[in-house]
Amino acid sequence: MKLKLASSYGFCFGVKRAITIAESYTNSATMGPLIHNQNEITRLKDDYNIGLYNKLDDVQDKDTVIIRTHGIPKNDLKELKQKDAKVINATCPFVTTPQQIVKKMSTENYSIVIFGDETHPEVKGVKSYGDDVHVVLEPEEFEKIIFKHEKIATVAQTTKKKEKYLEIVNFLILKYKEVRVFNTICDATFENQAAARELSKEVDVMIVIGGKNSSNTKQLHDICVENCEDSYLIENHNELDFSWFSKKEICGITAGASTPDWIIQQVIDEIQKI
Amino acid sequence: MKLKLASSYGFCFGVKRAITIAESYTNSATMGPLIHNQNEITRLKDDYNIGLYNKLDDVQDKDTVIIRTHGIPKNDLKELKQKDAKVINATCPFVTTPQQIVKKMSTENYSIVIFGDETHPEVKGVKSYGDDVHVVLEPEEFEKIIFKHEKIATVAQTTKKKEKYLEIVNFLILKYKEVRVFNTICDATFENQAAARELSKEVDVMIVIGGKNSSNTKQLHDICVENCEDSYLIENHNELDFSWFSKKEICGITAGASTPDWIIQQVIDEIQKI
Repeated sequence: MKLKLASSYGFCFGVKRAITIAESYTNSATMGPLIHNQNEITRLKDDYNIGLYNKLDDVQDKDTVIIRTHGIPKNDLKELKQKDAKVINATCPFVTTPQQIVKKMSTENYSIVIFGDETHPEVKGVKSYGDDVHVVLEPEEFEKIIFKHEKIATVAQTTKKKEKYLEIVNFLILKYKEVRVFNTICDATFENQAAARELSKEVDVMIVIGGKNSSNTKQLHDICVENCEDSYLIENHNELDFSWFSKKEICGITAGASTPDWIIQQVIDEIQKI
Repeated sequence: MKLKLASSYGFCFGVKRAITIAESYTNSATMGPLIHNQNEITRLKDDYNIGLYNKLDDVQDKDTVIIRTHGIPKNDLKELKQKDAKVINATCPFVTTPQQIVKKMSTENYSIVIFGDETHPEVKGVKSYGDDVHVVLEPEEFEKIIFKHEKIATVAQTTKKKEKYLEIVNFLILKYKEVRVFNTICDATFENQAAARELSKEVDVMIVIGGKNSSNTKQLHDICVENCEDSYLIENHNELDFSWFSKKEICGITAGASTPDWIIQQVIDEIQKI
């Protein structure tokens, strides 16, 4: 089996940064999962004793709390800072940007649209920074929305697809006199996506490695499926099914922005056994 | 020959307003043609003795000068106001809006993109209100443009097509962190366009009445040709060619935003003779 890695894959800047921060605070704990990758979270627990809080009340005095890469809602951060705990902010700077935009645009009387998943922690965090903030995934959703203001400002979840963001903003541009469009989509995501698109065109089978609850990993998989029917999303080498490689010659490999190199290496090692 | 008028056609709000203003200043003159319709300008000359200045130096002390619907460059207006002449501003309020946006965005350090024709008087006027203002018609033109600032603000010539404006702003959104999109395209133009689109689908021959140098009239004609091959642009009834109507049953009629009702009526009367 010939293996080919995408020209860009895996950890983005924000995730690398968050892990480096976490590794320097042994015996701490993160507010929500630090990144969307269970294997890496287990490694941080095993090697650095970094635990996990599921809710604010879990935080005890003198604890060291690490804020996850996706950020947390404004009031949660405020409440944490009021506790007698040490708060370490590992929010990705590319997520801090839309948080600050939403805050500023809200004070300037813009109604705000976030293009993203309402249930995603990043979006929950960003949304909490403004008033009259509406989260949408499709232009059709605007039918039910009544904006408080005449001017609209838009941001996007950092891991969303640009093409779809354009659909959302175009709908608004045609309808409103001023639409202030902030392109908060992270380039790292797109470099991985562009590389996956290219690679998936030239292989027989494509393996996408990443968390199944990771938005950007799922999008990588969607992109690969478009070009290579036999594209599989796995979290680690244990999920590999050797039947996938029968009668195939070239296998492409890519990985989501929260997938550590050591997991990718294990997958490569396993496939090379074929 | 069955005749059918578009559900919306002819004079827009800004043109009606400018003519009403002009009619109340007999013996005045306009700075550039008041509207893009030579027949109406001739009528104003004949009935109200409203003349035409071709350049600023033509203006004499004590003259009454009417600013055309398309507006004039900022410095020209300033120079006029410094003369001992009475300046009457008939600039369409929908054109004043992009002028003011460009002025404001310039002071807030945005680079500015105008989607429009560089040579159109409206665009020349709007452009004069800012620094680092670039006029484009196609996204390809951005290749040659170096913006002074990181943030971009966009306005459109009031008579341009929305779909093309989206192409321009989408290009910018993908490339720049903030694009502040002002939809300065005038709805009146679109109501006429939508009505022309509908009507041109159900007729055998389509007559578009308007100035041949009028941007919005040309666009109306383009739209009609898409649905009805036999669409003709004429300035007045004298240009009608009876051969156009041979073997046709239904004739649709629309008119540009600067076409007066009396010209439309003359065309209708002439066609009804068939």
